Amino acid sequence: MNTRLYNARILTMADGFEPIWGEIWIQDDKIIYVGEEKPSDLHWDVERNVCGNLILPGFKNAHTHSAMTFLRSYADDLPLQDWLNKQVFPMEAKLTEEDIYHLSKLAYLEYLTSGITANFDMYLTPDSIVQSSIDTGFRTVLTGAVNDFSQSAALVGEWYQKYNGYHPLISFELGFHAEYTTSRNILDDLAALAHLYQAPVYTHNSETAGEVASCMEKHGMTPTQYLDSLHLFDFGGGGYHCVHFTPEDIAIFKKRSMSVITNPASNLKLASGIAPIQDILQAGVNLAIGTDGPASNNCLDMFREMFLTTALAKVHENDASAVDANAVLYAATVGGAKAMRLTDCETLTAGSQADLIVIDLNQPNMQPVNNISKNLVYSGSKQNVQLTMIAGKILYENGTFDVGTDVQEIYHTCSEITQKLKTK
Amino acid sequence: MNTRLYNARILTMADGFEPIWGEIWIQDDKIIYVGEEKPSDLHWDVERNVCGNLILPGFKNAHTHSAMTFLRSYADDLPLQDWLNKQVFPMEAKLTEEDIYHLSKLAYLEYLTSGITANFDMYLTPDSIVQSSIDTGFRTVLTGAVNDFSQSAALVGEWYQKYNGYHPLISFELGFHAEYTTSRNILDDLAALAHLYQAPVYTHNSETAGEVASCMEKHGMTPTQYLDSLHLFDFGGGGYHCVHFTPEDIAIFKKRSMSVITNPASNLKLASGIAPIQDILQAGVNLAIGTDGPASNNCLDMFREMFLTTALAKVHENDASAVDANAVLYAATVGGAKAMRLTDCETLTAGSQADLIVIDLNQPNMQPVNNISKNLVYSGSKQNVQLTMIAGKILYENGTFDVGTDVQEIYHTCSEITQKLKTK
Repeated sequence: MNTRLYNARILTMADGFEPIWGEIWIQDDKIIYVGEEKPSDLHWDVERNVCGNLILPGFKNAHTHSAMTFLRSYADDLPLQDWLNKQVFPMEAKLTEEDIYHLSKLAYLEYLTSGITANFDMYLTPDSIVQSSIDTGFRTVLTGAVNDFSQSAALVGEWYQKYNGYHPLISFELGFHAEYTTSRNILDDLAALAHLYQAPVYTHNSETAGEVASCMEKHGMTPTQYLDSLHLFDFGGGGYHCVHFTPEDIAIFKKRSMSVITNPASNLKLASGIAPIQDILQAGVNLAIGTDGPASNNCLDMFREMFLTTALAKVHENDASAVDANAVLYAATVGGAKAMRLTDCETLTAGSQADLIVIDLNQPNMQPVNNISKNLVYSGSKQNVQLTMIAGKILYENGTFDVGTDVQEIYHTCSEITQKLKTK
Repeated sequence: MNTRLYNARILTMADGFEPIWGEIWIQDDKIIYVGEEKPSDLHWDVERNVCGNLILPGFKNAHTHSAMTFLRSYADDLPLQDWLNKQVFPMEAKLTEEDIYHLSKLAYLEYLTSGITANFDMYLTPDSIVQSSIDTGFRTVLTGAVNDFSQSAALVGEWYQKYNGYHPLISFELGFHAEYTTSRNILDDLAALAHLYQAPVYTHNSETAGEVASCMEKHGMTPTQYLDSLHLFDFGGGGYHCVHFTPEDIAIFKKRSMSVITNPASNLKLASGIAPIQDILQAGVNLAIGTDGPASNNCLDMFREMFLTTALAKVHENDASAVDANAVLYAATVGGAKAMRLTDCETLTAGSQADLIVIDLNQPNMQPVNNISKNLVYSGSKQNVQLTMIAGKILYENGTFDVGTDVQEIYHTCSEITQKLKTK
């Protein structure tokens, strides 16, 4: 199948932040040409005149718990411990694999509306998540969520072997829930897996001040120092949140070529704090951005996260010039792909996967067009997402989805599941 | 002209936060019925089946500088003084009245996409702003912007007389730019006007730590204390920003029945700080929300501001239960109308102005519908705004505008003005 998108501003993210004018050719799931408009002998199955609008790589949602859509607007405005113990955990205990299949789909729809073309998902049942993602046509990198209460290091190892190479839209990374929920023996088993597969390891890290204080008390080290001392990061990896992060933590992340995945909306809403993004970037650590799950955010919207990444850095540093729009746009696209090891989804270049979005510049919040990346990061909104393509397939265009299932059916099923969980 | 919106969830904002099911009847610019569906003898010129979606009062943007759209994405990522002195002031010096007419229209379009039905605008040339607003069909409350460099107390008094009663969509409030830009003699003249008209007075107040420190040094009082001592607030009024606000300032606002108008996105982006919203609300002071102008925000989006109002309060108080969604939704609608003295635009009740919006709940970010106000405040997005009506007229519906001018022409004119300002 051959697709051509022409008459476009194209921000390839491979070469600065000035869009070029031209066209993109796509064959099946891959980009085969990006550049000035030129003649072609190919037959086009799909052609779109982009009308001067902007094409760029899709956003990478580098930390989420997709299936938690059932908790949206159900567990808000509560102190953190009440939120977890009275709302989240009792509801989660009732979830079935099939529930997670449907609830994940609802999240994928929302990602598509926000120009997100891949998610780095940590949740309970990889099998049903993989199926949901494939059935939708969405790209998912899963990570292990093992802790003392669910999954196991052995299962994480099995999934790592099973799901890498299983399907072009799916990959799996080693991971565990967090230092404070995971015993030493599990961590040791995971470190052994990291060495066996020479693979990176991902986890929640330093999300709250309490988490760091408790680790210091138990081990005399921050979570990053402690986990690194157990050789979990010998082949890299990443940390979700990294709010209460020290210069020593940043240095370890740099030394191990690890990624910080920031989740600013969730960190505000749960009163966790503001991450030191400027220090992280100045140290040369790769930055990625995630929405976190819908229970704690509640919107799965990369535009919100991009604005917050820069705006919170500015107020945190007391400097309106801190963390500029280009750095944020890079983190939301290339930085995310690097964190998720989606090496063929970083930029719009020949040979890369065709994971891209079209941004409608012909709307009031994008006018005038003084600067594309500033427009996207400071003024951009879901409303500007005209088209979202994953692996060469248009899954969302002008408000309409093409995801294998009728979206009304997805809404209905997820509402029924939510009612069931609330009342059972 | 008679309009009927039926098969709707309706959040009137007059009686709690649970929507009722029913319909709304509108005659010309006024609501004549809100309640359960019932037969009518009226002939309907316009009828809409809202399909179970949500109708609520339009948002009130209670502080902005609309015409600054030309500065969007032109003056970002800079220290505050460079931003003002090297970018904003030199460009503003070149603006004509006609430029401001067109640039304001671009902002009105964006307000409509975000469900905003009125704006409280402080800018240079009231005459052309009034004309732009009337020509668009948009509702504008203007406030004086007098300071040592532009306008005069006499002009503010003239405009107050001229524009109150001038047109149903327009009103004018006494105001000045800020304590730090306005000399004592002007402040005294304004206080005299406040007493003459028994009218409230509005100004930028305690936006930055530096502004407060400098006022303390000059007068031994905070800006609120100093301005109150000059009898400017004897008939109430309001403060834009109120970031570096003391308990004494809050007590004065309470005593004078004044409104705090918070601008959280702008306060982050310019590294000004986080306002003590929880203290302000707990003191019983009326809270309203504004986007500030497009130079400092840059998006004119009430959904962004609503999320930030609660999320920043949570991190500021270190308490995830601070400032709940209902309080924020109230501030964005009723609180704004109160601050702007739009007493007939507060709620959806018979006799009120028909300033309302329809929110599409049939989108992934609004599913499941566990709680309407939490959905709106935590997950809502411009993309959910299906219809925006002002004074009974539908100005925006399903992405299409009906504002008297072709929107492409507005974009084109504003781009040309921006180019001229950049190069002249």
